Parts: sequence; structure tokens; C-alpha cells
Amino acid sequence: MQEKINTPRRRVLAAAGAAAAWAGMSTVARADSTEPAAQSNPQPVSDVKPLPDYAKWKDANSLIVHSANTIETQRGAVGSSVITPLNRLFIRNNVSPPPAGITDNPDAWQINIEGVRKPHTFTLAQLKDMGLQALPMVLQCSGNGRAYFPHKPGGTQWTVGAAGCVIFTGVPIATLVEALGGVQDGMVYMTGTGGEEIPAGLDPNSVRVERSVPLEAMKDAILAWEVNGEPLPLAHGGPLRLIVPGYTGVNNVKYVKQLAFTKAQSPASIQQNSYRFSAVGEKGGPQHESIWEMPPKSWITSPSSPDTSLKAGPVVIGGVAMGGMDSPSKIEVSIDGGKSWQEARFVGPDLGKYAWRQFAFTADLKPGRYNLASRTTNAAGQTQPAERAENNRGYNNNSWQDHMVEINVTS
Amino acid sequence: MQEKINTPRRRVLAAAGAAAAWAGMSTVARADSTEPAAQSNPQPVSDVKPLPDYAKWKDANSLIVHSANTIETQRGAVGSSVITPLNRLFIRNNVSPPPAGITDNPDAWQINIEGVRKPHTFTLAQLKDMGLQALPMVLQCSGNGRAYFPHKPGGTQWTVGAAGCVIFTGVPIATLVEALGGVQDGMVYMTGTGGEEIPAGLDPNSVRVERSVPLEAMKDAILAWEVNGEPLPLAHGGPLRLIVPGYTGVNNVKYVKQLAFTKAQSPASIQQNSYRFSAVGEKGGPQHESIWEMPPKSWITSPSSPDTSLKAGPVVIGGVAMGGMDSPSKIEVSIDGGKSWQEARFVGPDLGKYAWRQFAFTADLKPGRYNLASRTTNAAGQTQPAERAENNRGYNNNSWQDHMVEINVTS
Repeated sequence: MQEKINTPRRRVLAAAGAAAAWAGMSTVARADSTEPAAQSNPQPVSDVKPLPDYAKWKDANSLIVHSANTIETQRGAVGSSVITPLNRLFIRNNVSPPPAGITDNPDAWQINIEGVRKPHTFTLAQLKDMGLQALPMVLQCSGNGRAYFPHKPGGTQWTVGAAGCVIFTGVPIATLVEALGGVQDGMVYMTGTGGEEIPAGLDPNSVRVERSVPLEAMKDAILAWEVNGEPLPLAHGGPLRLIVPGYTGVNNVKYVKQLAFTKAQSPASIQQNSYRFSAVGEKGGPQHESIWEMPPKSWITSPSSPDTSLKAGPVVIGGVAMGGMDSPSKIEVSIDGGKSWQEARFVGPDLGKYAWRQFAFTADLKPGRYNLASRTTNAAGQTQPAERAENNRGYNNNSWQDHMVEINVTS
Repeated sequence: MQEKINTPRRRVLAAAGAAAAWAGMSTVARADSTEPAAQSNPQPVSDVKPLPDYAKWKDANSLIVHSANTIETQRGAVGSSVITPLNRLFIRNNVSPPPAGITDNPDAWQINIEGVRKPHTFTLAQLKDMGLQALPMVLQCSGNGRAYFPHKPGGTQWTVGAAGCVIFTGVPIATLVEALGGVQDGMVYMTGTGGEEIPAGLDPNSVRVERSVPLEAMKDAILAWEVNGEPLPLAHGGPLRLIVPGYTGVNNVKYVKQLAFTKAQSPASIQQNSYRFSAVGEKGGPQHESIWEMPPKSWITSPSSPDTSLKAGPVVIGGVAMGGMDSPSKIEVSIDGGKSWQEARFVGPDLGKYAWRQFAFTADLKPGRYNLASRTTNAAGQTQPAERAENNRGYNNNSWQDHMVEINVTS
């Protein structure tokens, strides 16, 4: 949508301060690095920074542009309709996207399937006649919430907005594999290779976007050519993207040109060294756990600003809750910084275990300051923890403490 | 989304013929009439006609612009992700929309609630703190499918695209009514009044958009300020719209400025004379049934063109099925014009009884001509009929015969 978007009523007071913060930001846009530099100020900003050409169609007023390849949704811009509009969905590219021309004729896009009994190359047109699945799911960057780590890890300082809930549509990978005679014996990983161009003179493994996930992730995975009812745009990995529901964003390989079942994980640096769970101060490597499955997490989206000022009376506190690999089954809200909790209610449709749910809680607030927090539990009994799991690069932050919103209620 | 949209592979051959049809069309844009003139050629066109200013943000390549106030989605542009993207959603205004400025400060919009024990005027900001519901539902114009009536009823010649499945978000009307002491005794209708400007010198009842629905429709109805995660745009009734799920589009009053519980139906012409189920040749009036609840209906969206030419082999036939007031529970597909039927499968999430579901059926087609049809049954046991219910103005066409797609399969 290109209509004028209005500043939400609750964000007006915060705008002046945020503008000042923006002016003081020394953003370093390292478009072709898998490890963007840490920014000097992790605070979200509501001012408008230009969108890159491939994402010009997005609603700049709902986004925070960190760099040409890292753009997040403002906390209050995610809406209350479960599905995140595409023009507000975050973008995170590890390297610059391929030329926009690859989406001019999407049906001609080709993908090799390897590591099956009958390896085969399909065009996207052929995939469209092999099966159809529509998969609602949370797409979330591994580093979402990184800004809250006190040791200031390198990388984009995402707050809550490197996440959205969308519906990807494509062909089930299990269907393709069955048609190709099944996975070859001994293969334990599913490895997707992105179609980004590798600059001349560089070691391909240093920049190639190639990710391996455990073979079991194939079960619900699809090759998607559509998102939220539209042909998959370049900004989100079109014409074809590997979608592995429940797994962090990087595992959902964009512009996917090869899907291979492999005995070992990809030798690419993005697999071997990046996206590893290592202790603070320790560089990641193959000996560390890979960042794959997402844990349960929730956050409040309305009121949305740390500096929100509200009038006393009933206030609807809203947010989103995801369960990771299992449905979110319970959501609690605290208005006293986590000292006490009350159960909130889920709002709107349940789109399945990989989607998030909206929640709402009505509180009758007297004048004063409040720390609003939310905490979800999934169907497997996992509860969102108070503390983040410390790690060097600031991955998978699902601490409810870190995601609190402070509000000021006036008479 | 503003990216270049590509002509779907299956529509390429149809484009040339459609362009010729477009050139020959004598479209009469009667922007301020509740009864647009019949067009001389009901055929859908895939060429681009300029969008009106208030809908400039829409994707022109996915739409058929009948007039400034009547714009439908192309059959093949609805996608396979259940939710219809806003930039592809149809538009039907009975009169021209109010000035765009009314969405500049949506929270200031006011609505009177009348016919309750404690009548009250709310601002939209106040409504937002009274409750929250997200409601997936089919929004469909009463005249969708009118183009297939052989007697050529007056009005826009909609084919299948005056319908979409979206998620509206707002406050339950039942919650408001409870807060205002309940409905006054003796009230049997819920009447919404639109905020359109009435041109000077006209009898307000001749143009006012004011619709009454039975009181029981209040149960699941909401006042919505958001659709698909975005603030409700002017083109779809923003800042505030009355949403009555399961009822045809006109009952979902845009720019709603008053909601009244009443003893009688609105005296407006749009209630008394329009949207009435009268015999062919007979003008509608209060003695005829009002167009309220929608019947079950389905149609094929892919392949999408009557002139589609496909290669022999497996073809995924896809479409949408809605149940009206109850969930669609079964979907059948025929490739021989309805002589024989096979059960298809629903694809993707079930968003609740008012939403539609996507379906898919894989057919292995040899060279030849095929008439593809779909037929749905809802949870109440109502099956989509072969024949339309004839009526003067061409409302509620849910005939499966009328919605067939003819395809040509080559070797």
C-alpha cells in the first residue's frame, strides 16, 4: 500500500527524541558483509531513511532502515491481523541480492535437486504442476533482539522487528523427493544454495549463501514462489525460496538454485563459522551448535514505544506470540515488570504451529509508570525465559525481560 | 507491492484477444449512481485502465477497472495463499468516497451508537481501547458473477473478481453494546450509515449509503480500523468500517459514522429498492427479500483463462471455496463440465467459517479441450448448485456451471 501512513497516536511523543537519536547514529552500511558492523546506537528510530531500489515498494514509514540489506519493522507497525503485510515485512540479506531481472520471468527459474536417487533440474513452471501447499509461518532473523545483548555483539542491532508472520505458497519438498526416488542413502542434511552472484576474485565459500539443516526439517519444508498471495518479490527471495518452517531466517535460502541432500554440512563460511552458538568473546566454528530451530517468544506491539504516554483508563495491550517448533498455547502479560502475571487471550485465527498468534489483554491503568511484559508457553511446555541465552553474536534472544515496554500513564 | 508483475504463464495466449475486447468496450463510468449502467461487453479484460486517485496504490496489472468505483481482481490474480493482498482486492463504491483527508487522523473519526440504552459517541481512539478481534472473512460484492446472467442485468459486469478473503481487525460490536447497557427493547435491525458526502439538492435517501441487517448479525460483527495488518485505507472504507461477516459487501458499510439499532429497515433507497431479490423484469422493492447472507460458492483460479492453452501432463487445478454462513467442508472438481466429479483437497490453513479455503486437484491431462468446474458443500450441508437463482439485478450468483473455465491442452 502506498497511502499516506499516519503516525500512530502513541508514538507521537517519542518522535522528537528518536529524531535526535537518528542524527547521532553512525550507521555503517556494509552491504556485502555477512557480519555488518555494530551500530553505535541500538535505539529504534521512527524517521525515514531511504529504502534501497529493490525494496522501494515498501512502506518506509513502518520500517527502520539499518542498511541497504537490513531493514526492520517498527514495533508498532506489525498490526493486529496476524499476517504481516509484505510492505512492512523486514528484509535481511547476507549479501546483495541478484539483479532484479531474475523475477521478470519467474517460471523460467531453474533449480537442481541433488542427493536424490534421480537428480533432476526443474523449472519453476514445472514445480507449479507438482503440488501446492500454503504455509503460514513466522519468518525471523536469527539476530532479532540482538540490540538487547549488553556486550553489544557485532551485526545489525535488531530490536523486535526482524520478524513477521506470512503465508508462503509452493510445492512440498517431500513431494519432489518422492517423485525423484527418495533421498540417497546416508544423507543427513538438506542443503540449499542461493543464487547470489559471487564477486570475481573471492573465495566462493567466503560469501556463498549456502545453508544446511537436518534432514528431518524436510518434513514441512517447501519451495515457495508466492508469499501472502503475491509472486515472491526479489526482496524476499523471489522467484524461488527454500522455506524451512520453524527455523531462523537464514535457513530459508533465497533465490534458491540448488537443493541437495548431503552427508556433511555446507563448507560455506555462513554455515561453518557464522550462525553458531558460541560463548561471548569466542568466535563461532563447526564445534558450536548451529542456529536452526527457533525458541518460543512473544512481545508487546501496542503500546509500542518505550516512551509512550497514555491517558489513565482501560488500555488494550496487544502483541504477538510464537511457539517455535510447536504452537503457542498460553500467553501471559505483566504490567509490573514481571513481578506478577495474568493470562491474556489469543485474538483471531490460529494459522498452525509455525505461525504466531495475536494476543490482547485489557488493563485498567491508573496514572504512573508501568513495565509491560509478555511471556508465552508452547504446546511442548516450553516457556519463554526471563533471561536471554548469552552468546557471542547475539542470536535467538527470547528473553521476556529484554522485550519489555515502559509506558507512562497520565491522568 | 509495486514491483513489476509478470503475466502468468497461462494467460499469455489470452492477452491479444482480451486487448481487442477492451478496445471495443463502451464503458460508462457513472461514479455516483447506485445502479451503474450495463456494459456492452461483459468480457473480462487483462489490459490496464487507469486506477482512480484513491486507489492508485493498487496493482493495476492484477485488476480489471470497470469504472472509478468498480474494480475487480482478475481471476488468476488472487493467489494461492488464502489471504487476498490489499493491492489486488476489488473495490466497489456505491457513491464516490469521501475526501481522502478523513484517513489523515483516523483516531479522531467519530461514530454515534444509537438504539442502545445509553447512546454514545466514540472516537476511533476510544474504540481501540474497548476490545480487539481479528476476523478472517470473504468480502464479496452482491453482484459478483452478474456477467453470467443471460438477461444482462444492469450494473457492473463482475465475473469472479468482486471477492477476496481478508482479515479485518477491530472491536466486537457485542462488546460495545454491552458497555452501553444493551440494545433497546423492540429493536430488530442493526443499521449502519456511511460517511459519504450527500451532494446538495439531492434527496438524501436517494443516495445515502445506509444498510440494515437483522439484529442477529451483530453476533460476530465488528467495527474495523485495520485490514490485513494495515490501517484501513479509504478505498476499503477507512478509517472505520462496519463488518458483518457472511453478508454481502454492501452490508459492510464504509466510513461508518453511525450504528443504530432500529425497529425498521433504513428508508434509504439502497435498502428499500436496491439489493432486493426480485424476478427478472421486476423492479426491486421492500416486498422482496433483501440481499444479506451469502450462499456457498467456489471457483477455479488456476488455470485462470477461458482460452488457456496448456501442455499435456499433470496440471494442478486450484481455486477458492467459501461456505457463506458455515465453513466449506467439501470441494469437488470436474474436468468434463460437470458430468463427473472428484473430491479435491483443501490447501493451507482454515481461517474459520467466514473465510474461504484454497483447494487443489492434480489432473493428468491428455491433449484436448476441457471444461473445468468446482463445487463446494458447506458444514450445514448446502451444496453449490448447478444453476444460478435468476433475479432481476443479478445478485448472489453461485452457479458452478456459470463459473467454469475452458482450457485447451496441447501435446
